[in-house]
Amino acid sequence: MEVKAVKRTLGLLGSLLLAALALAQAPAPLSPAEKEEAAKIYFDRCAGCHGVLRKGATGPALDPKKMAEKGVEYLKAVIFGGLPGGMPDWGRQGILKEKDIELVARFLLEQPPAPPVPTFEEIKKTWKVHVPPEKRPTKPLHNRNWQNFFGQVLRDTGQVAIIDGDKKELVTIVPTGFATHILRSSATGRYFMAIGRDGKASLIDLWMNPPQVVAESKPCLDARSIESSKFKGYEDKYAVVGCYWPPTMVVLDGLTLEPLKMVSTISYAKGAGELVMEARVAAIVASHFNPEWIVNLKESGQTWLVDYSNLHKKGRPLPITMIDTDLFLHDGGWALKRYFIVAANALNKLIVIDTKTREFAAEVEAGVRPHPGRGSNWEHPTYGPVWATGNIGSPEVTVVGVDPEKHPQYAWKVVKRITLPYAGTLFIKTHPNSPWVIVDFPMSPSPQAAASLCAIDKRKLEVAKCWEVPGAQELKARMVHPEFNKGGTEIWVSAWGSKDTPTFIVVYDALTLKEKARITGDWVRTPTGKFNVYNTAYDIY
Amino acid sequence: MEVKAVKRTLGLLGSLLLAALALAQAPAPLSPAEKEEAAKIYFDRCAGCHGVLRKGATGPALDPKKMAEKGVEYLKAVIFGGLPGGMPDWGRQGILKEKDIELVARFLLEQPPAPPVPTFEEIKKTWKVHVPPEKRPTKPLHNRNWQNFFGQVLRDTGQVAIIDGDKKELVTIVPTGFATHILRSSATGRYFMAIGRDGKASLIDLWMNPPQVVAESKPCLDARSIESSKFKGYEDKYAVVGCYWPPTMVVLDGLTLEPLKMVSTISYAKGAGELVMEARVAAIVASHFNPEWIVNLKESGQTWLVDYSNLHKKGRPLPITMIDTDLFLHDGGWALKRYFIVAANALNKLIVIDTKTREFAAEVEAGVRPHPGRGSNWEHPTYGPVWATGNIGSPEVTVVGVDPEKHPQYAWKVVKRITLPYAGTLFIKTHPNSPWVIVDFPMSPSPQAAASLCAIDKRKLEVAKCWEVPGAQELKARMVHPEFNKGGTEIWVSAWGSKDTPTFIVVYDALTLKEKARITGDWVRTPTGKFNVYNTAYDIY
Repeated sequence: MEVKAVKRTLGLLGSLLLAALALAQAPAPLSPAEKEEAAKIYFDRCAGCHGVLRKGATGPALDPKKMAEKGVEYLKAVIFGGLPGGMPDWGRQGILKEKDIELVARFLLEQPPAPPVPTFEEIKKTWKVHVPPEKRPTKPLHNRNWQNFFGQVLRDTGQVAIIDGDKKELVTIVPTGFATHILRSSATGRYFMAIGRDGKASLIDLWMNPPQVVAESKPCLDARSIESSKFKGYEDKYAVVGCYWPPTMVVLDGLTLEPLKMVSTISYAKGAGELVMEARVAAIVASHFNPEWIVNLKESGQTWLVDYSNLHKKGRPLPITMIDTDLFLHDGGWALKRYFIVAANALNKLIVIDTKTREFAAEVEAGVRPHPGRGSNWEHPTYGPVWATGNIGSPEVTVVGVDPEKHPQYAWKVVKRITLPYAGTLFIKTHPNSPWVIVDFPMSPSPQAAASLCAIDKRKLEVAKCWEVPGAQELKARMVHPEFNKGGTEIWVSAWGSKDTPTFIVVYDALTLKEKARITGDWVRTPTGKFNVYNTAYDIY
Repeated sequence: MEVKAVKRTLGLLGSLLLAALALAQAPAPLSPAEKEEAAKIYFDRCAGCHGVLRKGATGPALDPKKMAEKGVEYLKAVIFGGLPGGMPDWGRQGILKEKDIELVARFLLEQPPAPPVPTFEEIKKTWKVHVPPEKRPTKPLHNRNWQNFFGQVLRDTGQVAIIDGDKKELVTIVPTGFATHILRSSATGRYFMAIGRDGKASLIDLWMNPPQVVAESKPCLDARSIESSKFKGYEDKYAVVGCYWPPTMVVLDGLTLEPLKMVSTISYAKGAGELVMEARVAAIVASHFNPEWIVNLKESGQTWLVDYSNLHKKGRPLPITMIDTDLFLHDGGWALKRYFIVAANALNKLIVIDTKTREFAAEVEAGVRPHPGRGSNWEHPTYGPVWATGNIGSPEVTVVGVDPEKHPQYAWKVVKRITLPYAGTLFIKTHPNSPWVIVDFPMSPSPQAAASLCAIDKRKLEVAKCWEVPGAQELKARMVHPEFNKGGTEIWVSAWGSKDTPTFIVVYDALTLKEKARITGDWVRTPTGKFNVYNTAYDIY
C-alpha cells in the first residue's frame, strides 16, 4: 500500500508539473482579488444575457474552452466594440474601462465560479419594514393627483423619481435597488413595487407625503420581475419576485414584503429535457380570472400558473401548474386582459396563455427577437382586437389578432407586419384615447436611430411619422420607453444617457405629437422605464 | 503583462508542488478505475441512506473533510462492523469484501463525483413496449384466481416471482430492475408495476399466460417509488416514478410506461430553507378523492399534491401543490383511505395529509425512526378507527387515532405505545378479517430477533405472541414483510437471506397463527417485499 501510494503521488506530481507548464503559455489565471472583481463586472453587465453559469439565453453560451479558442484579444475586441445582433459596445460606450475589459476577457477563459444561493433564513434577514401597515395613512396625505404620478427609474443611480404627471414636477426621489428593472403597481395603485437588478424589492407608498419606501427585502442576488396579487379579495395581499440568481421565485407579503415562501425554478427544459440549473424567472403577471400569477421561466421554457390563495394554510400550500411552452421566455403583456402573450425571444415566437381556461392557447411567429415590454392593445376596424410587439432584431411591429371568440379568422395570426425605418425596438406603447402606437429604437447601433421615435397609425397599420428627438444625440442618449399619462393625452419618453450627464424626459401631445414639455434637472440621470400609476395598475397599454 | 503572468505562474507552480507533497502523506487518491468501482459500490449500498452527494438523510452526512479526520482505518471498521442505530455491518454480513470496504473508505475522503442527470430524450430511449395495449388480452388467459396472486420481490436476483396465492405455487418469474424496491398494483389490479433501485420501471400483465413484462422504461438512475392513477375515470391511465437520482418525478403513460413529463425536485428545505440539490422522492400514493398523487420529498420536507388530470392538454400542464410538511419524509400509508400518514423518520414524527381537503392536517410524535411501510388500519372499540406504525429505532408499535369527525378526542393523538421485545421493525400488517397485527424485526442486530415475529391483539393493544421462525437463523435469514392473502385468512412472511442460498416464504393461518405451509425452491433467493394483488390494489392493510 505504501509503495503504491508514493508511485501514484509521483505520477500526480508529474501531471501537476505539466499542467503548470502549460499554464505558463496561456494568459495568467486571475488572482482571487481579480477574479472577484471580474465576477462582479460579469454579473452586472454580462450575466443578464449570457447567464451566471454562462449557458446562454438572450446571448450565446460562453464555454471556457471555446472562449480559449477565440483568445483573449478577440474577446477584448468584442467586449469593447460589440457585435451586430445585440452585443453592446461596452468599451466604446465608456461603460467598461480597458482594465475591466481585460479582466472580463480573462475571466471567460476560466470556469464560472458557483455563485452563492441564499437560504430562506438569510433572505428573511434582509427584510425591513420602515413604516408598518398600521402606521400608514388611510388616505393620501397630499392633494396631488397620485393616480397620474409617474415612477421614473433612474437606472444607474439606484433610485426612482416620483413625478407629478399633472404638474410635471418632481415630487420626490426614493432609494431603491441597483439598476431597478421594473416598477409594478399594487392592485389598488397606491403602492409602487420596484425590483432592482441586485434583487432588492422596495415598496413605495404614494399616499405618504412625500411618498417613501415603507418596506424592503432582498430575496435574490439578481432579479428582473415583481408583481402583486390582483384577484378580487386578494388585492395587495401578496407580492412575488422572480429571481435570475438564484433561479427562484419568492412569495412575499404584499404590505410588508416579508418573505413567505421560496420555490426553486431549477427545471427540465421543454423539448430535449436537459436539467437547467439556471432557469431564470422572466416576466410575471397577476391573473384577473384566478388568484394566480403567470410566471415565465426563461431557459427551461415553462410557464407556471402559481395560485396564491392557500398560502395562509398550514405548510403554505402553493399550487403551481407547470406548462411546457417554449424556450427563452422573456417579457409580455395582456391582450383583452385575458390572454397573456409572452415572447420566446430567441425563437422569434410569441406564446399565448389563456388565463381564463388556464391553457396554453397558441404560438405565433413574431419578427426577430420580439421584445414586447407589455405590448400594445387596440381595436382595429377589420381585425377586431389586436395586440402588437416590437422586435429587437428586425425593423418591424408585429400585429396579432387576439379575439378567438368574435374574430376567430384572425385569432393568433399575424394580421400585419408594419415595417419600421430601424430595428432595435425595446418598447411600444399606446392608450385607448390615442390614435398612435409609439415605438422606440434604443437598441439600434445608429445613434440617430436610437435618438428617434416613430408613431404608427392604429387604423391604417402603417408608420405615420418618425422623428429624431432634438438634443438627444448631443447627450449620447437613447430615447426609451414611451408611456402615456392617465388620461391618454400625453406621451412621455426618457432620454437614456450616461450617469455622468443629466438628460431629460420629453412629453408629447398624444394627438398632435407636438412636444409639450421637457422635464429636466440635475437629478435626471439614466432615466429608463417610467410607469404611470393608473395605466400600470389597470393594465392599460 | 508578460512578466506578471510568469510570476503568477511560478506562484501557482509552487502551490501545486506543496499540494502534491501534502498528498504524499495522505492515503493515495483513487485511480479513475478504482473511483468508478468505489462509486458503484457506494451508489448500491450507501447512497440510499447517505445520499449520492453525501449530504445525509436516514444516515448522517459524510463530509470528506470530516471523513479524513476520522481516518481510513476507522471508516473501514465502521463499514465492516456497522454501528448501533442502523449502519449495517456490510463486512460481517459478507456483502462487502475487504477490498470493497477499503475502496469505499478511501472514496469517502474524496469529493463526491457529480453523477449524470439524464435528459428527457435519453430516458425516452430506455422505453420499450413488449406487448402493445391493443395486443393484450381482454380477459385473463388462465383460470387462476389472479386477484390472490402475490408478487414476491427477489431482491438481489433482479426478479419478481408471481405466486398463486390459492395454490401456493410459483406461476412465473419475470425479470425486473435491480433490487426491486416495491410493487404497486394498477387501479384495476390487473397490472403490477415494479420499480427497481436502478430506476427501471416494469409493467407486469397478470392476465397473460404466464404473466409477463409488457412494457418498461428507466426514468431514473436510482428510484424507490412508483404509483398508478386511481381516481375514477383515470384508472391505469398514468403512472409516476419517484427518483432518488436524479432528484426527479417522472410521469409515465399508465399502459405503456412512455415517459411523458419530468419535474425536478431540487427544492428549498422546509425551515431554514437551504437549496437541497438531492431532494429525493420517497413515498407516492394515489388519492381517492382527487385525480392526484401525494408525492413526498425526503430532504426538503415537502409534500406535493400532483394533479394528473390535465396532461392531455397542450404543454402537458401539471399542477403541483407544494406544501411544507417536514424533513426526512420516508414512507407511509392510508388511514380511512382519506388521510395519508407519512413518516418524517429522522424527526421521529408522523405527518398527516387530508387528501379530501388537500391540507396538511396534523403532526404526531412516533417512536424512534418510524417506518410504517404503509402502516395498519383497524377499528378499536374505544378509540374508533386507528392506524399504527412500527419503528426502526425503538421497540414500539405506535397506535394513532385517525377519525377527527367521529372521535375527535383521539384524532392525531397516540392512543397507545405498544412495547415490543425488540426494535428494528420495518413492517407491520393487518387485515380486516384478522384479529392480529403482525410485526417483523429485520433491522434488529440480533439474529434471533431478526428471525422472529410478533402478533399484536388489535382490541387489547398488546403483544399477544412472539415467536422465532424455525429454520430462519440457520439460513442467516431475517423474516420480513408480513402480507395477508385476499381473504385475510393467511399471513405470508419472507425469509430474507443471502443470494447464495435459497430460503423460504412461510404461510400462517391468520386466526390460529399456526404455520400452514412453506414455499420453497431454488428460485426463492433474497425474497423481501411481497404484494397481494387485491390488498395492494384496494389499499387493504
